[in-house]
Amino acid sequence: MTAELREEVHAAARRARVAAEDLVLATRERKDAALREMAAALRERSEEILKANTADLEAGRAAGLTENMLDRLALSEQRIDGVAEGLLTVAGLADPVGEVLRGGLLPNGLEMRQVRVPLGVVGMVYEARPNVTVDAAGLALKSGNAALLRGSSSAENSNTALVAVLRDALEAVGLPADCVQLLPCQDRASVNYLITARGLVDLVIPRGGAGLISTVVANATVPTIETGVGNVHVYVDAAADLDDAEAIVLNSKTRRTSVCNSAESLLVHADIADVFVPRIAEALHAAGVTVHADPVFAGLSGTEVVAATDEDWDTEYLSLDIAAKVVGTLDEAIAHINEHGTGHTEAIVTSDVKAARRFTTRVDAAAVMVNASTGFTDGAEFGMGAEIGISTQKLHARGPMGLAELTSTKWVVWGEGHVRPTS
Amino acid sequence: MTAELREEVHAAARRARVAAEDLVLATRERKDAALREMAAALRERSEEILKANTADLEAGRAAGLTENMLDRLALSEQRIDGVAEGLLTVAGLADPVGEVLRGGLLPNGLEMRQVRVPLGVVGMVYEARPNVTVDAAGLALKSGNAALLRGSSSAENSNTALVAVLRDALEAVGLPADCVQLLPCQDRASVNYLITARGLVDLVIPRGGAGLISTVVANATVPTIETGVGNVHVYVDAAADLDDAEAIVLNSKTRRTSVCNSAESLLVHADIADVFVPRIAEALHAAGVTVHADPVFAGLSGTEVVAATDEDWDTEYLSLDIAAKVVGTLDEAIAHINEHGTGHTEAIVTSDVKAARRFTTRVDAAAVMVNASTGFTDGAEFGMGAEIGISTQKLHARGPMGLAELTSTKWVVWGEGHVRPTS
Repeated sequence: MTAELREEVHAAARRARVAAEDLVLATRERKDAALREMAAALRERSEEILKANTADLEAGRAAGLTENMLDRLALSEQRIDGVAEGLLTVAGLADPVGEVLRGGLLPNGLEMRQVRVPLGVVGMVYEARPNVTVDAAGLALKSGNAALLRGSSSAENSNTALVAVLRDALEAVGLPADCVQLLPCQDRASVNYLITARGLVDLVIPRGGAGLISTVVANATVPTIETGVGNVHVYVDAAADLDDAEAIVLNSKTRRTSVCNSAESLLVHADIADVFVPRIAEALHAAGVTVHADPVFAGLSGTEVVAATDEDWDTEYLSLDIAAKVVGTLDEAIAHINEHGTGHTEAIVTSDVKAARRFTTRVDAAAVMVNASTGFTDGAEFGMGAEIGISTQKLHARGPMGLAELTSTKWVVWGEGHVRPTS
Repeated sequence: MTAELREEVHAAARRARVAAEDLVLATRERKDAALREMAAALRERSEEILKANTADLEAGRAAGLTENMLDRLALSEQRIDGVAEGLLTVAGLADPVGEVLRGGLLPNGLEMRQVRVPLGVVGMVYEARPNVTVDAAGLALKSGNAALLRGSSSAENSNTALVAVLRDALEAVGLPADCVQLLPCQDRASVNYLITARGLVDLVIPRGGAGLISTVVANATVPTIETGVGNVHVYVDAAADLDDAEAIVLNSKTRRTSVCNSAESLLVHADIADVFVPRIAEALHAAGVTVHADPVFAGLSGTEVVAATDEDWDTEYLSLDIAAKVVGTLDEAIAHINEHGTGHTEAIVTSDVKAARRFTTRVDAAAVMVNASTGFTDGAEFGMGAEIGISTQKLHARGPMGLAELTSTKWVVWGEGHVRPTS
């Protein structure tokens, strides 16, 4: 069985590679036509998609999934419309393939260009939401990559129906259906076969919890990109505008607690702690947030808080909880963030230019905000049109990943019989 | 002992991380001053370096190293002068850190910039040549990274002497000596501790043979970049200028056989095989090259060749040998290259624009040459000033790696109290 599953995954990867070779030659016109065809077909065939989704929801309910999980799994006419609209947005974005990044004439007359090219075969491993299936397929297609999609077993019927629609749309415009393939999802081993298909797969992006990501990183032999773990801090500096600080802390924490750009820790400079701590403690309490405070913060808060443990500084709550601490200096805040942060998004609230410059330079993260909510770290907000995840690693892509981040480059050099001197 | 070695490597990585935090704040002026100080000190202290190198050479001779290996290990006043000059070249290059890659105002007034930042701690694993120690340290320093150098045990005395000079130079300009550290090299396990020091090390670049690289890829949990394996092809198209073709084949094969950009396979279109095969076979023979030919090539060659085996198509000879084959079509050449190539450099010789465009688009490699020798794939030739290796992978960096390829990016976002709407 295991050898069979391995062969099934590898066979899909080989078909994807063949499809990717065709996709390299596809013009933007052809790719955009496929995206528009996909969007139209999703709307037309919503009934069959919703039927499959209902089967997943019933099985999920029987298996005891929480309401929150069922909500992430659920599709509706409106949600299908949303993902179709997303494909049209991607069709409207510029084609990253062929973009010339650097170039010029060398002293010997060689004409050199560094151009963006597709990566080839891109694998995605993700959890419940079936909309990720369509988003990932669309971004992969536009950037010229064949997609191997390994979704959650709980969404198998929905994903199967969605991928059938996407594949038909590809064929309708004359592109290979194997540009989009769904991998077996009932056995965890299929993830392992995907992330070790070296030479067949060019990149795997795990999108999910810390457990999935660390499994992938530990076992992968194909390149991977870590996404989405966000132990995000807001630091309120001695020179902060306290109205801005309150608004930014509340927005960063409570806008949507389940997303990776939401704040999980609050650091307050000692010089303003007397005034700001009771104010923000009350505001957070009023917003339903539980504050896990260090002794100094707790002592000043004047509102009910719980005592923070060492673990709180490293916890990504993804809930109405926040760790809170008073720090003596800017550098203490920076050191705390660099020790406990996950390199996602960090914010400073300050009116002091020197403090802001030191914070943005020394804090080691994908995004650093000055006087702005951490909630802005998002591909759509950053003007990328769409995102396939938020990279928290330093190589290849850092922060929101759009189309450009799904490409590699190639040096193309034209000469007229140039040879290199032997010296 | 093993636990001790592990702790020794990790302790070095922790010191490197502290040093890297200082380096983030170092101005270009300071970094360039360090590079110039290093260059001067290498020249001044050449006697102690050469004494250490003599000890390595004597030990190497006693251990039976080949003359070729001893030559790679050997330093001289002239070679020391060369690496010192290399540091001055790096000092003259623009600082990649702080470069703004993208940026602008978002619709809501947020001011956003994507800037280049150092990676942090960069490890290098390399073989005999001690000049790599200085080159790598210089490039790492200029790009704001602390370097952990794991050289060959056969060069231990030389590397120790070189690193002592470099560290003194760093201190002389007020930068932490721990920006450059030499790791223990007598035990292979130190490589494993380096490539699994997740969270302490940001990137490891293996520079060496295919064995080293595949060990690193299989076992690393820190990000790595594969370098330098080059099964490089020259394809002579039906529409080739045969004078150009002969010159390019000879230059690609014989300029320097031991380097990764030298050609290892020759593909000739059937339409010109009658004329070109005997001509190039004779020219290669005259240049001392052994041709491993397929039956068609062999039948046309008119000069002594040896019969190619299946292995020849995948062999990186790094010697005066070349595999040679006649192909029926351009697409057969492309398919052969994509199957057997290592994604380093591939060349076409043709006067046909359509053939050149198809080749450059479909061939999957870091560099694709049209009517030019494969020998041009090189950081210095590409105008990067220096290179730390040639990446044959698709993520992060592809082709010659200069200063820019040793950086990551960071999104820096300035607002004035901006919060994100909850919708």
